Amino acid sequence: MSDHPTLAELDAASPFVDRHIGLRPGDVATMLDRLGFGSLGALMDAAVPGGIRSAGDLALPAALSEEATAKQLRALAAANRPGEAMIGLGYHGTITPAVIRRNVLEDPSWYTAYTPYQPEISQGRLEALINFQTVVGDLTGLPTANASLLDEGTAAAEAMTLVRRAKRGATGPFVVDADALPQTIAVVRTRAEAMGIEVVVADLAEGWPADLPEAVSGALLQYPGASGRVVDPRPLIEAVHERGGLAVVAADLLALTVLEAPGAMGADVVVGSSQRFGVPLFYGGPHAGFMAVGQGLERHLPGRLVGVSVDAEGRPAYRLALQTREQHIRRDKATSNICTAQVLLAVVASMYAVYHGPEGLRAIATRTHRYAAVLATALRAGGVTVRHEEFFDTLTVEVPGRAAEVVAAARALRVHLRHVDDDTVGISTSEATTRSSIGSVLRAFGVEADLGALDAAAGEALPAALRRETPYLTHEVFSSHHSETQMLRYLHRLSARDYALDRGMIPLGSCTMKLNATTEMEPVSLPGFADLHPFAPAEDAAGYRQLVTELEGWLAEVTGYDRVSIQPNAGSQGELAGLLAIRGYHHGRGDQQRDVCLIPSSAHGTNAASAVMAGMRVVVVKSAEDGGVDLADLRARCEEHADTLAAIMVTYPSTHGAYEESITELCEVVHAHGGQVYVDGANLNALLGYAKPGEFGGDVSHLNLHKTFCIPHGGGGPGVGPVAVREHLAPYLPSHDHHPEEAKRAGIGPISAAPYGSAGILPISWAYVRMMGAEGLTRATASAVLSANYVAARLGEHFPVLYRGHGDLVAHECILDVRGITKETGVSVDDVAKRLVDYGFHAPTMSFPVAGTLMVEPTESEDLAEIDRFCDAMIAIKAEIDRVAAGEWTPEESPLRGAPHTSRALVGEWDRAYSRELAVFPAGISPDKYWPPVGRIDQAYGDRNLQCSCPPLEAFAE
Amino acid sequence: MSDHPTLAELDAASPFVDRHIGLRPGDVATMLDRLGFGSLGALMDAAVPGGIRSAGDLALPAALSEEATAKQLRALAAANRPGEAMIGLGYHGTITPAVIRRNVLEDPSWYTAYTPYQPEISQGRLEALINFQTVVGDLTGLPTANASLLDEGTAAAEAMTLVRRAKRGATGPFVVDADALPQTIAVVRTRAEAMGIEVVVADLAEGWPADLPEAVSGALLQYPGASGRVVDPRPLIEAVHERGGLAVVAADLLALTVLEAPGAMGADVVVGSSQRFGVPLFYGGPHAGFMAVGQGLERHLPGRLVGVSVDAEGRPAYRLALQTREQHIRRDKATSNICTAQVLLAVVASMYAVYHGPEGLRAIATRTHRYAAVLATALRAGGVTVRHEEFFDTLTVEVPGRAAEVVAAARALRVHLRHVDDDTVGISTSEATTRSSIGSVLRAFGVEADLGALDAAAGEALPAALRRETPYLTHEVFSSHHSETQMLRYLHRLSARDYALDRGMIPLGSCTMKLNATTEMEPVSLPGFADLHPFAPAEDAAGYRQLVTELEGWLAEVTGYDRVSIQPNAGSQGELAGLLAIRGYHHGRGDQQRDVCLIPSSAHGTNAASAVMAGMRVVVVKSAEDGGVDLADLRARCEEHADTLAAIMVTYPSTHGAYEESITELCEVVHAHGGQVYVDGANLNALLGYAKPGEFGGDVSHLNLHKTFCIPHGGGGPGVGPVAVREHLAPYLPSHDHHPEEAKRAGIGPISAAPYGSAGILPISWAYVRMMGAEGLTRATASAVLSANYVAARLGEHFPVLYRGHGDLVAHECILDVRGITKETGVSVDDVAKRLVDYGFHAPTMSFPVAGTLMVEPTESEDLAEIDRFCDAMIAIKAEIDRVAAGEWTPEESPLRGAPHTSRALVGEWDRAYSRELAVFPAGISPDKYWPPVGRIDQAYGDRNLQCSCPPLEAFAE
Repeated sequence: MSDHPTLAELDAASPFVDRHIGLRPGDVATMLDRLGFGSLGALMDAAVPGGIRSAGDLALPAALSEEATAKQLRALAAANRPGEAMIGLGYHGTITPAVIRRNVLEDPSWYTAYTPYQPEISQGRLEALINFQTVVGDLTGLPTANASLLDEGTAAAEAMTLVRRAKRGATGPFVVDADALPQTIAVVRTRAEAMGIEVVVADLAEGWPADLPEAVSGALLQYPGASGRVVDPRPLIEAVHERGGLAVVAADLLALTVLEAPGAMGADVVVGSSQRFGVPLFYGGPHAGFMAVGQGLERHLPGRLVGVSVDAEGRPAYRLALQTREQHIRRDKATSNICTAQVLLAVVASMYAVYHGPEGLRAIATRTHRYAAVLATALRAGGVTVRHEEFFDTLTVEVPGRAAEVVAAARALRVHLRHVDDDTVGISTSEATTRSSIGSVLRAFGVEADLGALDAAAGEALPAALRRETPYLTHEVFSSHHSETQMLRYLHRLSARDYALDRGMIPLGSCTMKLNATTEMEPVSLPGFADLHPFAPAEDAAGYRQLVTELEGWLAEVTGYDRVSIQPNAGSQGELAGLLAIRGYHHGRGDQQRDVCLIPSSAHGTNAASAVMAGMRVVVVKSAEDGGVDLADLRARCEEHADTLAAIMVTYPSTHGAYEESITELCEVVHAHGGQVYVDGANLNALLGYAKPGEFGGDVSHLNLHKTFCIPHGGGGPGVGPVAVREHLAPYLPSHDHHPEEAKRAGIGPISAAPYGSAGILPISWAYVRMMGAEGLTRATASAVLSANYVAARLGEHFPVLYRGHGDLVAHECILDVRGITKETGVSVDDVAKRLVDYGFHAPTMSFPVAGTLMVEPTESEDLAEIDRFCDAMIAIKAEIDRVAAGEWTPEESPLRGAPHTSRALVGEWDRAYSRELAVFPAGISPDKYWPPVGRIDQAYGDRNLQCSCPPLEAFAE
Repeated sequence: MSDHPTLAELDAASPFVDRHIGLRPGDVATMLDRLGFGSLGALMDAAVPGGIRSAGDLALPAALSEEATAKQLRALAAANRPGEAMIGLGYHGTITPAVIRRNVLEDPSWYTAYTPYQPEISQGRLEALINFQTVVGDLTGLPTANASLLDEGTAAAEAMTLVRRAKRGATGPFVVDADALPQTIAVVRTRAEAMGIEVVVADLAEGWPADLPEAVSGALLQYPGASGRVVDPRPLIEAVHERGGLAVVAADLLALTVLEAPGAMGADVVVGSSQRFGVPLFYGGPHAGFMAVGQGLERHLPGRLVGVSVDAEGRPAYRLALQTREQHIRRDKATSNICTAQVLLAVVASMYAVYHGPEGLRAIATRTHRYAAVLATALRAGGVTVRHEEFFDTLTVEVPGRAAEVVAAARALRVHLRHVDDDTVGISTSEATTRSSIGSVLRAFGVEADLGALDAAAGEALPAALRRETPYLTHEVFSSHHSETQMLRYLHRLSARDYALDRGMIPLGSCTMKLNATTEMEPVSLPGFADLHPFAPAEDAAGYRQLVTELEGWLAEVTGYDRVSIQPNAGSQGELAGLLAIRGYHHGRGDQQRDVCLIPSSAHGTNAASAVMAGMRVVVVKSAEDGGVDLADLRARCEEHADTLAAIMVTYPSTHGAYEESITELCEVVHAHGGQVYVDGANLNALLGYAKPGEFGGDVSHLNLHKTFCIPHGGGGPGVGPVAVREHLAPYLPSHDHHPEEAKRAGIGPISAAPYGSAGILPISWAYVRMMGAEGLTRATASAVLSANYVAARLGEHFPVLYRGHGDLVAHECILDVRGITKETGVSVDDVAKRLVDYGFHAPTMSFPVAGTLMVEPTESEDLAEIDRFCDAMIAIKAEIDRVAAGEWTPEESPLRGAPHTSRALVGEWDRAYSRELAVFPAGISPDKYWPPVGRIDQAYGDRNLQCSCPPLEAFAE
């Protein structure tokens, strides 16, 4: 700034970018010096191949201050009119307990945590997740539930593929209840179509239809149905079983507190959404979907599963179980591509159950039901026909020719009802329903009623034969935290066990654990964003529509594509959507035979899994010596499959974290053979402002907003995976029957249950782009690359850096090769990772993309002091390894194998070959030390002794 | 609930009271059983003397759900129209960094902490407070600053009394700058009048006026002045010194980043407010006032002072310094009655300085000034007269006859200006000022201008002779946390060092550390409450006015008084206001001679200090054997002072935590002798719903909203101390020139700088009463009494319970007598308190009201499990004491004296007479253990070696 700065200079002082980027001006100079570059620009010139560099600056609105951005977002939120959501269809009003909102949803110790792959430092959220599994298992009546799926629609689709995987011999179609949620049917159809699965939608209300095929692979029954009707599932389940299939029930968790558990009635799989357990509507997401399965199916479960094992000190300890099921192992044999879960939302839902307990939940359900029953009685008394005699919370009301009028009248009273068709209105009650809402509904129907009298008169409308008998939530945790003080302390105790970004760096390669700024996060709680139903009239969602339109536009600009859809609610879904667009394009040109998807051997496992799900055949392309794609092999494969080539999926910079020269040529070769180029956007943090996949040859990319665009990892989700395409693929982007834009209602179908997917967290990415502007985003990229190269330079002297790209530089991350060390000394990547905990760090990515290595991504948000602290720790660990190499310790007696060290170990007998101080304070004594709550966890033991619901408290007794 | 509950039953299920009260239904039965009572009612009948019991239930609105209360508060906030505050007068727009809002103001680990009297478990907030002192010390240019006062007005009044205390020989009046903030002048006058101090308000703009007396005790100069003018303070300071007085400067912290420090120019004392350092306007408070003093005056400082000492392991450690200065020691010799500070707000202000650093603050000040300079240039160019050539941020603009019109025009554009008089308008710029606000102001004046051109043309208007030369904020902490990631981690690191209610019980007697529910806390952040200027037009504060009117009404109802004023912003101020009302009443009746205030020997020290400040003479009344007031001595004192008796101050239940029978008689005796009865409401948590001080004999009480009414302690403030009176005292309640109610503008003057005191946190207490309702408040009282008696019953077997009252029961707290143990074994209350840390607890109140004892108040929010955990810990400690008594350990070698034990101690040489495990895990090994960051702190060392600003980082090197 000049001596006498002008207002213009002063207004631009201290922009958000200086808060987001961790490196201080002095840091940059020091680091550039170490690398031998005179400027950030020079470094980037050397690192990024000239051939892919963008010509101009990003065309984005000028960066706005935090204060101004917050104001704009408040205005956008205010432009939405949530009113009261009584539309139903799987999305219900709910009351997030304030103590959970503040201490989970709004607490960085929960939302900045990473996926619990390092279980020793993730015991808090693992406990919360096992509570979630217990809630789902208990309420569904099935023994094993996973720790969340993306939404109810995709959970149903996952169930369809699980059924086929589990029942290999099963033939015949997958039958879907006509009274299933319409968006569930649509998502299932989209998925089935690509995978060649036959889906039959049938009316199951009056029993199993005679005209269905003799054999079926499975059937999905909605319980209660979208119309509100509650059909006894037992005869249907029996019918499915008789026909050789598995029975899937899509159920409502709240209803299950008063209706018998599907598992107790023979269901094999139960899916659904936990949204109404305290998770805001969020205009459709993020919410935690769930799946529970019967005995024998647990190893087929998609997504993450938390189990109990033991630690080195013999205590029970949580960790992710059966990780071998995951797609990055199965790759092209996978039938699911799910990576992300909805951890943060699953935690909220589980804590809602913990806070209310079984009695509290039953009271909420009873009240919800009673409001529906009173309303039905009032309508009938007023001469209006309510279709079903038995229901839980949803009424189908017949108003011949008057539906639009009634829905409009209700809307004028700020209540949203479901416009089923011209003659029919749907109404769903919920925890949020009040006398005043019932009054408004009745007014909308033109019915007058005395609620007090009706309350006394109305009977119960739950089917007597289906009243819940099975107990649930009997574990102590569900009756121990019912006062706010108890709840607050429980939440604090769990989060204090975990290591998140509020403690220090999480240098996870490929995961981009950067700052989630508070100004980005705060708007998520605004009622205008939080309380809107996804099927509310488009004109009541003006704020969201503007936000999405702008965000999609900005994402298109930064990636160089023409069109973006933010519908996919995880990277995996974005991938699938992208591949379906390619598929749609080829089919549209009559090239049905183009079904080969080339995938480099170094690719992320999800790529292959997604290709399979998009109905493609995976053909692997070899890697070259330098880690890049072997162009000769690529040419050979293209020639070989010239007629059937559909696409190549390639990550850029590669999963090895290097800018490869050959990308332009690669794209040309594939295009020349009629294939489309899919550029996985996982590593966009190394490109933004410097290169655009849509410009250097990509036809489609998906992005991960929880990587480059600041959506917090939330301990393992939510994610958002927009798909970006060039114009020729635009017609094949996801559509949705309820899309607020008319033009996007028809098309290839939805990839997620809600039109805008995880709409509720899009303000985060919107705020990030708005506050950073073109220059800020560009500087962030350069800073991330600088930090990664600095780490590579410092640590490369101690651990070989596996791959380097253009200019002998790495991109935004680097791979440290531990394989030689392991071979020589017996010290493994695991040992290094766990020992880092003692030094106060979260480990880098372990054994991805190359087994036996560590991948480090410092991101742009860390400062030099923290990066140096990390490098110092790694160098000190190397010195410990050297002592093993020198024979001073065997690997077993070294602090590396003993790691992580707990405080418990400290007070017992000490018979180790190193001191207590070296064990727990290897980087110096500090009052701020993070103490891991458990020692090294035995992974194999847990898989051998699978237990996936809350263990009894006595198990933890010392 | 019945088998087929009605809506009415269901709507009432799970009310807030069940979340607030910790005791579960089963707990209550167990505890009553232990005490031998059949019901809560029976217990309360036995405990509360029949003579004081209220006849009927509290007349309060029916309890509302959390959700409905939140909605009502959102509506009240929306009824305020903050617009843009450019009124100035010590309250300025500021931008609270979002990371600080979320992670301090909205974080229970900060706001539920107690005052740092146990420094070993308060190192985090003590560091934050020493940062605050360093900020104030550096910017004012004086060596010693305290850790906050209540507001700028009371800080000025405190300075006036400090001056007289420090300069015992000084005679003559206290001179106050006519250009001081009007509310500061008014608060100083109110205080001075009662204490018999002569105040002369004089125009000091043109030098020291010749017509002032030859000798003065001191003078207060506003720098910059309320009019915006910046007078060189040097000649004035010299003039004061020449006349034997001390020079007090009331300064603006932001201005001091560009204007020379008053301390560097000879000022002896500097006071002010730190509000504009990131603390929301809050319609006037809470904000942290400050005071800094020159060498030799530090021992006269009122309020709290944080200093550096060393712990048992030789490391630097923070603690409150010079506690002997406090009023509870000085009692009737006190000249200040301050207890509460504004810790939470001081933390925010200090973190704002940490986050911006010296360069950042200078940029904000420069920008603020430049906006003012450009505005002045534009106005002058438009033909409008701006009075002063030199200013920092405030312009006095002359618009003969047009002031009202201009202010109204600005208001229509949502900008609030200062209506000085018919011909004059005041405008203050701030960090929140934007081009758009300047545009609105110019439009209001009818001036058109090209801001760009003006920006280039306008010069600087700071007086050249006063440009800041002295460096500031050179300590490393102010340049180490400038990225949001750094800031987040710093805040997390500090809060993780502390023990707050989010970890466990804080059983502080007399302090009522109950739940601060999230639904109570959330509204504080709503812009409608946070961003309103205290002098905004009354019609733009409709939400606040309704909220205050309702809250005052409810407080009157629950206390049995006729009128309440929520203006006093701390209990101490409420006390003073109450005594001033009594004084006003006697004076109004011509009884000027009534100036004796009876105070029982067991009273809280503040009582005596307040009486002195209200111009009364303190006469002590003896305590009876049972701890109550000795009625015989009371009668004797009343007789003795029959003509001069003004009042008695009595706490009920007594400070000993017992319901005394004699209270009714006591009131009668005092009334019979013409005195008024002041009932200190500190212990209202034992009365609510059962007895009303206004009914059983009190004429006036003050309440502590941070005790009974859920305002969080915030680590040592804010507090709110409403004063409640019977009708005859109502005319003597605090008034304020800017009061939104016209009727309250004239009167005895203000007790706080803002009309509604700490308005911004009143939604907390409003929500509490609204959600609890009459029945809930009553049940809370009974639950608190039950818990205290349960503790007394369990621990009474191990530590004698010092006093019991009616029915041989205690009230809401009990005193455990450790004196016998100390005499017998050498183990002190300190040892017990510190050892509790090892057991995972905050200590009870130490040595108040009786030295050598511990006072325990469990409150109604703890559950039985936590209460039992505490009792178990105390019993285990008693067993340890027994081992000392048995000679197994000397006191010095016992774990009691070694406590608290740090993790550092664990890894060093272990030569103690007990095991490591007994040291740190006496209650069993737990991964959730709280580790104190330092060992036992040497209090005396710190007072001998007073250091009250940030120590150099090297001091902490291991």
